[in-house]
Amino acid sequence: MYELTIHLQSKSKMPLYEQIYRYIKREIQEGRIASGEKLPSTRALCRHLEVSRSTVEMAYEQLLSEGYIEARACRGYYAARLDGLYQLTELDPVKSEKKNFDHKKYDYDFTPNGVDLKSFPYNIWRRLSRECLIDDRAELFRLGDPRGEYGLRNAICSYLHQARGVNCTPEQIIVGAGSDYLLMLLAAVMGQGHRVALENPTYRQAYRLFENLAYEVRTVDLDEKGMRVDELEKTGADIAFVMPSHQYPLGVVMPLGRRMELLKWANEEKNRYIIEDDYDSEFRYKGKPIPALQGYDACGKVIYVGTFSKSIAPSIRMSYMVLPEPLLHRYEKRCGFISSTVSKVDQLILQKFIEEGYFERHLNKTRALYKNRHDVLLSCLKEIQADFTVSGENAGVHLLLHFHNGQTEEELIAAAAEKNVKVYGLSGYYVGERGDKKQQRDAVILLGYANMKEENIHRAAALLAEAWT
Amino acid sequence: MYELTIHLQSKSKMPLYEQIYRYIKREIQEGRIASGEKLPSTRALCRHLEVSRSTVEMAYEQLLSEGYIEARACRGYYAARLDGLYQLTELDPVKSEKKNFDHKKYDYDFTPNGVDLKSFPYNIWRRLSRECLIDDRAELFRLGDPRGEYGLRNAICSYLHQARGVNCTPEQIIVGAGSDYLLMLLAAVMGQGHRVALENPTYRQAYRLFENLAYEVRTVDLDEKGMRVDELEKTGADIAFVMPSHQYPLGVVMPLGRRMELLKWANEEKNRYIIEDDYDSEFRYKGKPIPALQGYDACGKVIYVGTFSKSIAPSIRMSYMVLPEPLLHRYEKRCGFISSTVSKVDQLILQKFIEEGYFERHLNKTRALYKNRHDVLLSCLKEIQADFTVSGENAGVHLLLHFHNGQTEEELIAAAAEKNVKVYGLSGYYVGERGDKKQQRDAVILLGYANMKEENIHRAAALLAEAWT
Repeated sequence: MYELTIHLQSKSKMPLYEQIYRYIKREIQEGRIASGEKLPSTRALCRHLEVSRSTVEMAYEQLLSEGYIEARACRGYYAARLDGLYQLTELDPVKSEKKNFDHKKYDYDFTPNGVDLKSFPYNIWRRLSRECLIDDRAELFRLGDPRGEYGLRNAICSYLHQARGVNCTPEQIIVGAGSDYLLMLLAAVMGQGHRVALENPTYRQAYRLFENLAYEVRTVDLDEKGMRVDELEKTGADIAFVMPSHQYPLGVVMPLGRRMELLKWANEEKNRYIIEDDYDSEFRYKGKPIPALQGYDACGKVIYVGTFSKSIAPSIRMSYMVLPEPLLHRYEKRCGFISSTVSKVDQLILQKFIEEGYFERHLNKTRALYKNRHDVLLSCLKEIQADFTVSGENAGVHLLLHFHNGQTEEELIAAAAEKNVKVYGLSGYYVGERGDKKQQRDAVILLGYANMKEENIHRAAALLAEAWT
Repeated sequence: MYELTIHLQSKSKMPLYEQIYRYIKREIQEGRIASGEKLPSTRALCRHLEVSRSTVEMAYEQLLSEGYIEARACRGYYAARLDGLYQLTELDPVKSEKKNFDHKKYDYDFTPNGVDLKSFPYNIWRRLSRECLIDDRAELFRLGDPRGEYGLRNAICSYLHQARGVNCTPEQIIVGAGSDYLLMLLAAVMGQGHRVALENPTYRQAYRLFENLAYEVRTVDLDEKGMRVDELEKTGADIAFVMPSHQYPLGVVMPLGRRMELLKWANEEKNRYIIEDDYDSEFRYKGKPIPALQGYDACGKVIYVGTFSKSIAPSIRMSYMVLPEPLLHRYEKRCGFISSTVSKVDQLILQKFIEEGYFERHLNKTRALYKNRHDVLLSCLKEIQADFTVSGENAGVHLLLHFHNGQTEEELIAAAAEKNVKVYGLSGYYVGERGDKKQQRDAVILLGYANMKEENIHRAAALLAEAWT
């Protein structure tokens, strides 16, 4: 029998049983205890090491459960054969990715895609996460409903009804890991042979995604009310992708009349649908709130898509779509077997976050925060002596400056960059032919403020004033 | 000025400032404090309520941050206008889904898709989750790398190299929310116009998914070595979907020779690829381990797909695929913009779980657990006096019984169901024409044991013996 002399560190943070387990495991792994060799009995070893018997028993239990030793009835413990046992060595120390491009560093960045993460309620999220995990419930780790957990869908349903005027049941809601994923899933639901029309300019990511998902893609110009329905008609599209609450990037809020026209277009053919992307409807500063397009849809024509990326945090990866009845049946038939893409734990945390009122608080807090930044930016812009007008300022977290002084977007962006301020040109949001005609248009600059503290807005706006005048 | 007389509950679990905040919020929401009305100063209110000034200040701070009150310089606090403020009421009490079908309840269920969740290391997962969230790091809630966090991909890369002989760099790994999602993403990477061949019988979910993703789908028969390459050739497919480590459901382990034939097939045409689904390769009980097919691929032909659903838990929704160089470029170009489907927090927890050695321990523990169940089931089956042979018993978490006594699958399943034992027929795994020819084949029953305690295996096997003899 092998003599086990283990130098136990009684002051170590590592429990004694863990030290014994690790020592014996290594002895077996490195062949100093050969396969088939008998180990000391727990009684002998605890006396030898001067520890309690239960300590040694716990160590043996762990070794047994992982297959390093085996128990033979009435004879004791023996080192097991190791074939098949996983023995993973430490990781290579290389832990950071080599990036072979370097970005210019800016002092201020008016990204239109920012989210303020300082106001994220970390403490509450952590507490809810702890509460969800506390119960050792195996249920939480079993595969859940493909559409998402019912409790979460119920909470989303209630929120959508109250805050957005969306009419639906929890059964119509499908939770997914991000809007990109949900559009992929939707493509699988709809199947082949569709033509989708998007506003131009638009959210380019959606355009590229549709292009890759076997749709024919068309673009439709906007006027001051949003997507032109006469132009939509001409494209021959059967699906229209719109952002009526706050068009990205133009910031147009589609008035009721245009919404009705759009619904009328959809009702004219059996297979026409409207995808309503309500990506940042949570933030609105002026004017009467207009319910979601979905709320006016009596014929099951609108697919409503929303996300918690903007209203909570981009990395939590939870979005949802509301399918109208006809598509719900198609979803169940064609895609009902596709597993949910969101972990149950995360769904439960979010459900509690909504149910216990934290989502309401967080929405009001970030809305107030963004409204202050919005007001500060607008007042700072008034002091810039350049020939531009402002649009898109009633909602969302960015606005647009339309220049009428002959300067090009490139010139304006470059002048800002000289002052280490990053601003964004509208041209990048156009797709197709329109995307190449920027010379013929006035220069338009986008300024996002979600991620800019008020004092930084003051400073950055002063730099822009220098750059542009 | 409004007189605020709040009945504070000093013994409540709710902090005093929260009670004041809630009271005033409700007064404003319900119009008892009108918009524009002045609130008492913090000094007056703390004296009136006999609480500390900082308590009142915290309550006002909260009301201010959510937009219920506004501060006017040198004049104090005023109730704000409420338009635009979110006021979500409590949820409807209906919280459980109406299901209008009822399942037969079985005492024992030999599902081939089970996972033992009792051995899930809840305490460790909870601790790691707490550690990840403790730092209040905004970074954790920013949008991450579309391919997944580098640290996690590095950990997976190291595991795959050591445990599966997969040759890759972290740059080739894409983390996604489940294998279904990764196959959807892969379809977007590959684009249109492909024909994919699957083994028959197969994992039907993959078959249905490919069908819905605009692939032409073909099936190829297996012999005792796995997918027949001569038959594959005849289908004209350019993509082969195989499970060489442990074919589902037949349990065939593809020998080296057949693997080489398959790679040769792929090398014959520039655009041919092999999808290797290594869904449960972690569990192997007998015979020499064969590295993944990907490890033999010198020409960038194999797309390797793996998951933590089987090895950790189904609901954590983390899988990964390894793209060969040519497809990696296509991924970056066509799909590199699609956001990751896994939350950063979850990725970090898993990374720590692997890096700190818990994954290795858990693998060894579940493997030992499943091996015991596997051994018990095999020995119990020997006592059943029916004319069947066993196959697929060297790996995975299920095995197959081939009956030669003329009984049909339906009869065998029904007889087991009479004893309240649920068993599964192989027919359900066939697709297309072959799926309809079950009468011409011997009856084959699948028994999964991952989710069955040893004593239950004994009891259920005794019931099967009664049912089948």
